[in-house]
Amino acid sequence: MRDDTALRATGASETLDAETLRRIDAWWRAANYLSVGQIYLLDNPLLREPLTLDHVKPRLLGHWGTTPGLNFVYAHLNRAIRARDLDMIFVAGPGHGGPALVANTYLEGSYSELYPNVGRDAEGMRRLFRQFSFPGGIPSHAAPETPGSIHEGGELGYALAHAFGAVFDHPGLIACCVVGDGEAETGPAAAAWHSNKFLDPANDGAVLPILHLNGYKIANPAVLARIDGASLVKLFEGYGYRPYLVEGDEPAAMHQRMAATLDAVLDDIHAIRLAARERGARGLPRWPMIVLRTPKGWTGPKRVDGLKVEGSWRSHQVPLAELAAKPEHLRMLEEWMRSYRPEELFDEHGALRPELAALAPAGARRMGANPHANGGLLLEDLDLPDFRDYAVAVPRPGQTQAEATRVLGALLRDVMKRNAARRNFRVFGPDETASNRLDALFEATDRTWMAERLDDDDHLAPDGRVMEILSEHTCQGWLEGYLLSGRHGLFSCYEAFIHIVDSMFNQHAKWLKVSKNIPWRRPVASLNYLLTSHVWRQDHNGFSHQDPGFIDHVVNKKADIIRVYLPPDANTLLCVADRCLRSRDLVNVIVAGKQSQPQWLSMDAAVKHCSAGIGIWAWASNDQGVEPDVVMACAGDVPTIETLAAVDLLRQHMPQLKIRVVNVVDLMTLQPREEHPHGLPDREFDAMFPVDTPVIFAYHGYPWLIHRLAYRRHNHDHLHVRGYKEEGTTTTPFDMAVRNDLDRFHLAGDVLDRLPGLGGRIGHVKQVLRDRLTEHREYIVAHGRDMPDISGWQWPY
Amino acid sequence: MRDDTALRATGASETLDAETLRRIDAWWRAANYLSVGQIYLLDNPLLREPLTLDHVKPRLLGHWGTTPGLNFVYAHLNRAIRARDLDMIFVAGPGHGGPALVANTYLEGSYSELYPNVGRDAEGMRRLFRQFSFPGGIPSHAAPETPGSIHEGGELGYALAHAFGAVFDHPGLIACCVVGDGEAETGPAAAAWHSNKFLDPANDGAVLPILHLNGYKIANPAVLARIDGASLVKLFEGYGYRPYLVEGDEPAAMHQRMAATLDAVLDDIHAIRLAARERGARGLPRWPMIVLRTPKGWTGPKRVDGLKVEGSWRSHQVPLAELAAKPEHLRMLEEWMRSYRPEELFDEHGALRPELAALAPAGARRMGANPHANGGLLLEDLDLPDFRDYAVAVPRPGQTQAEATRVLGALLRDVMKRNAARRNFRVFGPDETASNRLDALFEATDRTWMAERLDDDDHLAPDGRVMEILSEHTCQGWLEGYLLSGRHGLFSCYEAFIHIVDSMFNQHAKWLKVSKNIPWRRPVASLNYLLTSHVWRQDHNGFSHQDPGFIDHVVNKKADIIRVYLPPDANTLLCVADRCLRSRDLVNVIVAGKQSQPQWLSMDAAVKHCSAGIGIWAWASNDQGVEPDVVMACAGDVPTIETLAAVDLLRQHMPQLKIRVVNVVDLMTLQPREEHPHGLPDREFDAMFPVDTPVIFAYHGYPWLIHRLAYRRHNHDHLHVRGYKEEGTTTTPFDMAVRNDLDRFHLAGDVLDRLPGLGGRIGHVKQVLRDRLTEHREYIVAHGRDMPDISGWQWPY
Repeated sequence: MRDDTALRATGASETLDAETLRRIDAWWRAANYLSVGQIYLLDNPLLREPLTLDHVKPRLLGHWGTTPGLNFVYAHLNRAIRARDLDMIFVAGPGHGGPALVANTYLEGSYSELYPNVGRDAEGMRRLFRQFSFPGGIPSHAAPETPGSIHEGGELGYALAHAFGAVFDHPGLIACCVVGDGEAETGPAAAAWHSNKFLDPANDGAVLPILHLNGYKIANPAVLARIDGASLVKLFEGYGYRPYLVEGDEPAAMHQRMAATLDAVLDDIHAIRLAARERGARGLPRWPMIVLRTPKGWTGPKRVDGLKVEGSWRSHQVPLAELAAKPEHLRMLEEWMRSYRPEELFDEHGALRPELAALAPAGARRMGANPHANGGLLLEDLDLPDFRDYAVAVPRPGQTQAEATRVLGALLRDVMKRNAARRNFRVFGPDETASNRLDALFEATDRTWMAERLDDDDHLAPDGRVMEILSEHTCQGWLEGYLLSGRHGLFSCYEAFIHIVDSMFNQHAKWLKVSKNIPWRRPVASLNYLLTSHVWRQDHNGFSHQDPGFIDHVVNKKADIIRVYLPPDANTLLCVADRCLRSRDLVNVIVAGKQSQPQWLSMDAAVKHCSAGIGIWAWASNDQGVEPDVVMACAGDVPTIETLAAVDLLRQHMPQLKIRVVNVVDLMTLQPREEHPHGLPDREFDAMFPVDTPVIFAYHGYPWLIHRLAYRRHNHDHLHVRGYKEEGTTTTPFDMAVRNDLDRFHLAGDVLDRLPGLGGRIGHVKQVLRDRLTEHREYIVAHGRDMPDISGWQWPY
Repeated sequence: MRDDTALRATGASETLDAETLRRIDAWWRAANYLSVGQIYLLDNPLLREPLTLDHVKPRLLGHWGTTPGLNFVYAHLNRAIRARDLDMIFVAGPGHGGPALVANTYLEGSYSELYPNVGRDAEGMRRLFRQFSFPGGIPSHAAPETPGSIHEGGELGYALAHAFGAVFDHPGLIACCVVGDGEAETGPAAAAWHSNKFLDPANDGAVLPILHLNGYKIANPAVLARIDGASLVKLFEGYGYRPYLVEGDEPAAMHQRMAATLDAVLDDIHAIRLAARERGARGLPRWPMIVLRTPKGWTGPKRVDGLKVEGSWRSHQVPLAELAAKPEHLRMLEEWMRSYRPEELFDEHGALRPELAALAPAGARRMGANPHANGGLLLEDLDLPDFRDYAVAVPRPGQTQAEATRVLGALLRDVMKRNAARRNFRVFGPDETASNRLDALFEATDRTWMAERLDDDDHLAPDGRVMEILSEHTCQGWLEGYLLSGRHGLFSCYEAFIHIVDSMFNQHAKWLKVSKNIPWRRPVASLNYLLTSHVWRQDHNGFSHQDPGFIDHVVNKKADIIRVYLPPDANTLLCVADRCLRSRDLVNVIVAGKQSQPQWLSMDAAVKHCSAGIGIWAWASNDQGVEPDVVMACAGDVPTIETLAAVDLLRQHMPQLKIRVVNVVDLMTLQPREEHPHGLPDREFDAMFPVDTPVIFAYHGYPWLIHRLAYRRHNHDHLHVRGYKEEGTTTTPFDMAVRNDLDRFHLAGDVLDRLPGLGGRIGHVKQVLRDRLTEHREYIVAHGRDMPDISGWQWPY
């Protein structure tokens, strides 16, 4: 580790002249003062009168512990940005330190530009303090409301992946990412350090990670703060970085160390860029990172009630509490705030003194005003080909076979080609792009790979635009960072394992929900999931790979940001994908299989069907002109096949039965219009599903979701849903359907069970269905595969 | 890295004498032969006739790539176990390599003991081959069906945490854990390497990690296989290990290297144990680990159709496919299998030759028969105190205040004390035990911590039994390993962030579902979640911390392994916790707040209520002897408070209204009895919720779950549910309820909206409710806290 000793030896202690040092320290004190003020004060913001309980918030909500460290970093980054005209954003992993980001953006002026009611004077400062963690005010953490942030301060672990995502294809950008020592214990953070193997210095920006060791979490020490220094150095060298250490608690010395170290790491970054861009250097560069070790709650109360607070876990939230009960604490609070000498920092109107305000970078160079952190400002539409050009010819339903994702792959290839110059589209996934049959993409680009390459590798390149790492967390984090900084992308994943990022999806969905109500946040491209290798076709990998529940998870979030599509074939998948790639501020979930299967809709029919999201398939129905006896509904590719096969069986054996087939491609149409903007109006729903007609609904996922979506519909009491009921193993595709009662024979039997008035033939037909099912089952167990007429089945009409 | 060069220099190449080398190699060949046979063959298991298509499976499902490496490790571990009489289990991170575990346990005899139909002869081998990845047979991955396994080969990332979990409190045990280089890219794996900071050599067993670099994933290289050797060494030294390298592809040399290295690492482990146990050594030991670098698909076909296969990503699944279309591939398959010289390995009956069978350890020392991998065999009941002794006195409902989790903490403290000698109970959580007010535990034990300790640390000790790391993945993985190896535990977590382990929960639930149907798998203790700091009391941390959706996720899994409890107060929490700690083979989810709140039930009443799981609260109702006008149901602590407050309002203002209050503590009672064993029979449900009576249901989580559970109930059309509808920010607790229409005023208004026949007074009362709500809202915005009569409210009857 290049530690401060080494730096001192090279004259680093004179990096800052006395006046610059004084001013940077003053900025830091101002940010600390404003941070404490946000946590504690309702009024008397400049302490122009003695502090009383009336000036203090009745509930003290906020996190002091990490805040002074963030303020320290921000102050020093400002100097570097100005000195080098850097294009830089700040990603605050310790999002608890919301007060720091608010304080610094207020000091630099970007806050008041976005929130003119919080002006740069005493009244503005009073509002700044009051609003923090206050009803009707702002959250206690970094949030969409926070200028300059692309990272929610909620769940920990994703800062580093977000930072890398933001700098891909932004060659001029540096994302300074503070990783807290708590966050550093999480799996997603531990994995994301390896993102350096996917960063191309020629075409991407840089991430400057600062591991902030302040030693403690809520009540525990942090692991990385308690391992020996040599191991810590090796860990980050092992991750491929060049670590620099900045450690201490004496402000003046720390300012010199931090300034010198920032100069050194920015020189390193510059050198790596130059080498790659001007001298064509190849291979994996060793990017710098900083280990910053400072006391938790630095500059706060040293001891409270006889116990150590600064430099201890006790400073995690509010170091001084119970102010009403303990007048001594109120006195200590005032003393603490006055220790920053506010009268030296703010003028008589409460504005930051001009010589300090001058420390901030100008205009969009201020980290609170950098457009990369409000990516919608930079967003350009994708240049999309006409998806109709990729259509599979379907002269008659069921007569063509195709692999839906392979067809989509051709479209994605051309999206990649058309936007190659813009460099604003990437595809992400855990090593499954080829397995998911999207390999046409490799005609247009390669897999991103900076590490060693060997002869038999398949499409690896430093500037590849397909990003594969066996970490769904890293894929998701990169994509979020890429989108929030103004680009487009798609995440393709095995359906079962997308649950790995359930919680990351939650956080992103919450971000979108809040962002939509913040006028200055411009819309960003939607987060698109393609879930393939889905539950019904994980027969070969077995039970552990079978789980369709991500849809259930997604629909818990706000209706206006959620879309779920289950295209039944290739042409509908093309339509849906086109719509998703054009959309903004949504999370789109597309579930589509990769296996060869019959195709149902011509492109014209597909466009019409997807535009409605739900529709009667008249060509498969025989209820023309009459009320149907039964509606057979389906959503998902395999349920659609089984439904059509069941209809086939019933039409053969019970030709008098009037059957209507409804296919659902947009799951949200099932909800009432009041619940979701795509919800079908009740009148149209009732026309499609007559109020007293039994409905057999074959659904891709867990069946109760359909009940949940449709429980307010008038027909709901007649709705009988089949889906995945958590039965599976390593078996055949058709047996997967059989085990979950979703196969054609069960579905046809379900119809007969609900139509007792059909008369004498019904018993005979039921027996036929049972016999056919038994025949299939026996064949499967004997031969280890499905009967050929199942796998090769084609709709016969 | 202590590489093979260093080992050779110390004479390591003579670790194995010629005969031992020959036999170990023969075992390895036998395991490889059986692995290929499982993937390919239906018949002709010993190749006693020329191989034809009829002998080959019609669908080839399995993963060869990782398998020979696993076989290699297993063969060498057997030698070490016998030489040192080791108590060892094998955790196969690359669970795709299911054929390896099956092959080795078959060779050692444990397989046939558990599955007598798969005997150790030619017919048994035929069945062994046929059943693999075959309908009605066994999964293609390591699974509960696999002898000696505690680790599902599905989702990647959890092997290492499982291995550590298994050895905690098993001082004699060594878990050899193979981590694939694909898995090593995941976040959970990257975090779990730090588990060494929580392993006490004096009281715990040891984990021997083997990072298996075979270079490739499905289509990509593996990151750790492509970084330079020096970085790789530093990475694992940085993680705190002493890495040893075993690299090569020439079998004889590799056998010598592996044997010598295993001897060295087992010496290291022995020395660490001795130092801690006999010389009282303190501090963090540097445990050994092995980096094993071998070709992917080692010993398989070198090239197929002109392309490199051995040592390439192309050997990931089946190196030879399309056997029907390509006769050359069939010939290569036969040649490949014969290359293992089966005639030297198996006798004329198909049994492993005696001199090879003798290589296996004896009895329970065989890794397929080690009882630690079938933890139910070792499981002892917890010694539990009488939970009634911890009761909060509740002379009248609503008159006592208590913090539910703090009361539970006292019970857990005594569970910890009573079982201290057994060492079979631990509590896990991401640094929230104290924050969740379970700190009474620290009267009985400490937090586990092996790294450096400082003066102001709070209850850290090497043998602490509260395990805190800021990685929900690691907590969950440790707990799973701890339970599956026969112990008890509890995971306490913020409700919102338990979604981080959604997918791990899925895998564990699937494991339990399958295990229950395997006769030789003995029941294990249930996985208990305590979700506190829940959505309604994350007002201070804000929107990112608010998510009650884990319950929705959980109820997608099989009803017979899922329980969800929402105790409304402290005494009900005690009852529920006692039940969960006694249960087996379940996942129990308990959601309970930590804040001070009114208590409703005396212990006697609580026992009765929890035993039913749902019940009418007669003391809060005024419908005695008559049919109620409305049922007000509630589930969850905050919804219960708001419901009772709404009843209070209604009884004041509409005394003629007959209200029944129903509280639900066991959410599964709402499901029909046919769907869940706890489901209330329809007749009882109808008696509680009269068929035509409106029900206002205040629910802790997303409201639609109640509809989903109750949609088959006769009353369902009259069910009106309030719950969390994804509205939140940093605000006050009561405002959280208001924003989601779950507060007393909305609930009372909901009643009035559904009883239009109430007559003239209704308009007046509605206005009163609106005015009161407005008054509260204005107070909150003005004062930044709830009105005192809200926070201090008590049920007045």
